[in-house]
Amino acid sequence: MITSTSNPQVKNLQQLGRKAKLRNEQDVFLVEGTKMYLEAPAERIRKVYLSQSLYEEKGESFVKGHDVEILEDRVFAAACDTKTPQGVLCMVQQYHYRLEDLLKKKNPLLMILENLQDPGNLGTILRTAEGAGVDGVILSKESVDIYNPKTIRSTMGSVYRLPFLYVDSIESILPVLKKHHVHTYAAHLKGKNSYEQENYCGGTAFFIGNEGNGLTDHLSSQADTLIRIPMEGKLESLNAAVASAILMYESYRQRRNA
Amino acid sequence: MITSTSNPQVKNLQQLGRKAKLRNEQDVFLVEGTKMYLEAPAERIRKVYLSQSLYEEKGESFVKGHDVEILEDRVFAAACDTKTPQGVLCMVQQYHYRLEDLLKKKNPLLMILENLQDPGNLGTILRTAEGAGVDGVILSKESVDIYNPKTIRSTMGSVYRLPFLYVDSIESILPVLKKHHVHTYAAHLKGKNSYEQENYCGGTAFFIGNEGNGLTDHLSSQADTLIRIPMEGKLESLNAAVASAILMYESYRQRRNA
Repeated sequence: MITSTSNPQVKNLQQLGRKAKLRNEQDVFLVEGTKMYLEAPAERIRKVYLSQSLYEEKGESFVKGHDVEILEDRVFAAACDTKTPQGVLCMVQQYHYRLEDLLKKKNPLLMILENLQDPGNLGTILRTAEGAGVDGVILSKESVDIYNPKTIRSTMGSVYRLPFLYVDSIESILPVLKKHHVHTYAAHLKGKNSYEQENYCGGTAFFIGNEGNGLTDHLSSQADTLIRIPMEGKLESLNAAVASAILMYESYRQRRNA
Repeated sequence: MITSTSNPQVKNLQQLGRKAKLRNEQDVFLVEGTKMYLEAPAERIRKVYLSQSLYEEKGESFVKGHDVEILEDRVFAAACDTKTPQGVLCMVQQYHYRLEDLLKKKNPLLMILENLQDPGNLGTILRTAEGAGVDGVILSKESVDIYNPKTIRSTMGSVYRLPFLYVDSIESILPVLKKHHVHTYAAHLKGKNSYEQENYCGGTAFFIGNEGNGLTDHLSSQADTLIRIPMEGKLESLNAAVASAILMYESYRQRRNA
């Protein structure tokens, strides 16, 4: 049992919660809470950290044969990112998808995120994407880290199931999408058609831009079609996760009713 | 100019950022940042607080005749809720809508939120509601305070324009909705029809539940119709703001194309 907050493993957990660079070096990410632990694919779990009280409550069977470390409750709390830790923290191996993994199915449905910055938005987009039957999420390398603890939490487990990929340049993958007959759409104030007037039953990818500034003109100009999400009132834009949800669920609606 | 963080006005601003009770007693809420200040209805502004640098940069015209107080930058930062204050904080008078304000139009579109807890979700729902042409948002009294600074920020100004109302009991207003021919829908796993199979062109209200637990059985059982939001994958639910957005934008789509 670890009884000191200065134990190197505790220090490492704290750093892993904060630093994307360290997560990438160690090729892991952290998930917190019982639900996220129980949903984690067994073969990806590197190590399970339990608070003493949770271990005593749940017993050995909860560990399921994984490499485990018990921490005094106070030490466990210090290792955690959340204010009200649930007593289980799990080190999981990172995912390494390739573009072809996202293009396996016929008529893929993809989200392409340019410089998205809010961890909660990214997690919510992943969660909604799983619900809408999206095949994968592509992110520009400037976007927030998907393994940020806040993102992980708001995916509600979708991070285990939905393929995603960071790319150095979105532009550079567009020819590959074209070859796979994926039509690209950018939500843009200058779009001629409202989003529901297009057909998304074929291969479809939506560009979603940064929360503050929207899509860059450069990337919008690369889209096959600009579409509008109509808005009443005096609003300038919708939240990025909301705009994504509207487009994904419209595609899903069309595909279910086709 | 206020030069001390122990000035009573500074103390009051700090407390107003934290305590709903104090906001209600003083009948005000705080908005931060240039955009939120400039969009605030002039007749509701009680007082404007400016950092010394912003005042020197913008000059007297920025104050627009409002009651103003200048704060040393360091003191201004202490008064603020945000980590990177923009230099303007504004005390605005609270809104007091009545149920009839939300039912003025023919075929109203309403959102009814039961025990919603996340300030960001509530702000995002207000923002999306304005975009989708919703007539008002009704909240159970246990829900998060709409004047929470995080909520205010994520409304992106919709809080100034969209009528809302806290009620002691959602059940007690249902007869009034019925009298106004408003049909109530609850998103529920047991819903027979998928949400897009219903017609929302008449008076429509959607029930949305708490983030962790969803709608109470009691309130779901009061809805005229249960609807399903279909989900692929292993997801148990969607984020409350996302589920709201899907329903509001489906209604708006139907109403625009009717």
